[in-house]
Amino acid sequence: MKKLINQPNDVVREALAGMQEAHGDLLTVHYSPDFVIRANSPRKGKVALVSGGGSGHEPLHGGFVGLGMLDAACPGNVFTSPTPDQIEAATKAVNGGMGVLHIVKNYSGDIMNFEMAADLCRDGGIEVEAVVIDDDVAVKNSLYTEGRRGVGCTVFAEKICGAGAEKSMNLKQVADVCRKVKANGRSMGMALTSCTVPAAGKPTFDIGPDEIEMGVGIHGEPGRERMKQMTAREYVEMMGDAVVSDIPFKSGDQLIVLLNGMGGTPLIELYVLYNEFAKLCQKKGLDIARKLVGNYITSLDMQGFSISALKADAQLLDLWDAPVNTPGLRWGM
Amino acid sequence: MKKLINQPNDVVREALAGMQEAHGDLLTVHYSPDFVIRANSPRKGKVALVSGGGSGHEPLHGGFVGLGMLDAACPGNVFTSPTPDQIEAATKAVNGGMGVLHIVKNYSGDIMNFEMAADLCRDGGIEVEAVVIDDDVAVKNSLYTEGRRGVGCTVFAEKICGAGAEKSMNLKQVADVCRKVKANGRSMGMALTSCTVPAAGKPTFDIGPDEIEMGVGIHGEPGRERMKQMTAREYVEMMGDAVVSDIPFKSGDQLIVLLNGMGGTPLIELYVLYNEFAKLCQKKGLDIARKLVGNYITSLDMQGFSISALKADAQLLDLWDAPVNTPGLRWGM
Repeated sequence: MKKLINQPNDVVREALAGMQEAHGDLLTVHYSPDFVIRANSPRKGKVALVSGGGSGHEPLHGGFVGLGMLDAACPGNVFTSPTPDQIEAATKAVNGGMGVLHIVKNYSGDIMNFEMAADLCRDGGIEVEAVVIDDDVAVKNSLYTEGRRGVGCTVFAEKICGAGAEKSMNLKQVADVCRKVKANGRSMGMALTSCTVPAAGKPTFDIGPDEIEMGVGIHGEPGRERMKQMTAREYVEMMGDAVVSDIPFKSGDQLIVLLNGMGGTPLIELYVLYNEFAKLCQKKGLDIARKLVGNYITSLDMQGFSISALKADAQLLDLWDAPVNTPGLRWGM
Repeated sequence: MKKLINQPNDVVREALAGMQEAHGDLLTVHYSPDFVIRANSPRKGKVALVSGGGSGHEPLHGGFVGLGMLDAACPGNVFTSPTPDQIEAATKAVNGGMGVLHIVKNYSGDIMNFEMAADLCRDGGIEVEAVVIDDDVAVKNSLYTEGRRGVGCTVFAEKICGAGAEKSMNLKQVADVCRKVKANGRSMGMALTSCTVPAAGKPTFDIGPDEIEMGVGIHGEPGRERMKQMTAREYVEMMGDAVVSDIPFKSGDQLIVLLNGMGGTPLIELYVLYNEFAKLCQKKGLDIARKLVGNYITSLDMQGFSISALKADAQLLDLWDAPVNTPGLRWGM
């Protein structure tokens, strides 16, 4: 294993320290338990948003802490759920009296620990709602997951709900918007290579020099099929069809799209892929109203990509366009 | 070779088409000859900035076209200089009557072709100045280069000179600021793995499973030394010392820092590395006044990183902080 780290067990904490050094104007890192909160938290009179999950998906979630997005992120060990005490402490630290929304990706450990933390916070008098994102159309049930996995639409949920909270929505309204994102967003990914978890020291899965994993999960979980490698166009047609035909999206729909790199994919390839997805949408009469191309929810050093698409009405587009100022996403500022 | 592409020869043009689809609000792609210009060019009454070089370093340069940065970028084939006709056409397309600055990375082919294009433009009555960035302290003379290679400080030059042009500096003043960046910026990189050029189909260089290339160039050119792998702290100390001791930077100096990923390096590792560099600077009394952590000048899928640092006075900091709105860098908007 070749990695740019010191000791495998120190990676998460040292990366957090690096985030503090790099983005101390936007966020503050707390240790024992570990969590990242927006600078000058709590915000009185604003619904607070908390998310989290295993580390290794950066910039998700810590890189999305800041104005117009998350109030707190709870980083677990690499690919490991954060503990209830992390989530409880983060929730209490950012509670501004208007309640807290937990945005949870659908993994069994994450759900269990967020639920325990929510119960502890409610016992302490904090109103907590939780929405579970489960947008991955690749497989139903998976390693770590009952039902569909939660992946790229989490970025949409964090951005859009964060804007809603800034616009003085109450907890019920922010949670309703999150449920709208959950209902209208779909994703799928693929991998050319496995990621390597630092503490494991070897690739999570074996894959041949001419093979790809279609429908891979963000921790390297098996997808739909092990296939021979194909062209960018063929990958996008296969995944794009699966994503847009699931609800389905219909001709004339407006979409917010994320063409996402898995961490080890060069940007030049992401643009080649985005070009194919734009053509596919045009053919189907789908209007890409907003888009992101880059690394937003990654899997360590995995080479691969995912497509996420959200059917967006005027409310979702308006919240998407609202100002955001985080390490990973910034506009309107 | 596993890549997310269609045909190797189509990668650059299809990526340009993807950039047009993704960022049509900011830029316009022209073909035959190929170049990228800021939307609604030329800007009358503003000095124009043109840069370019081989493709494969995205977001550099096309991703830095937009308000407050480049007016045009000329993408060559992967790791291949753009041709004089590309540079000439781009220069003419963005000339707003106040002259054009060419920002050139120090590679023999780039210099020759930018010089030919500048002569052709001058023959056409356009005032052109050129500044060659040569910030890589790793080696003197290299494959493709006489003198030091031009690498990460090009990002500083494009941002800072772009801001100067927006602030109505004349061509001489913008070129002087560019020379100030050139004189005060230094960089060095390393690689864990080789990149693979699509048309070559195999890694540019061989490297063992426990080896690294210290001082690597952005095309995979040999560096100072082939070494056994070490820790993030040791890499940063070796490279950071080389970067800050070259001019040298002195205790009390204010720096603008770029901790840059080579394309295949996960963000979590870049934060671990940035944490080490922040500690090194603190030990040396250097004040990191501004910083970027991420992929800004890449080498396709290479795993590795580079450190760039610019000694910044009040003028350079002010220009750095000015608004920028490009696909790859955005703030103040």
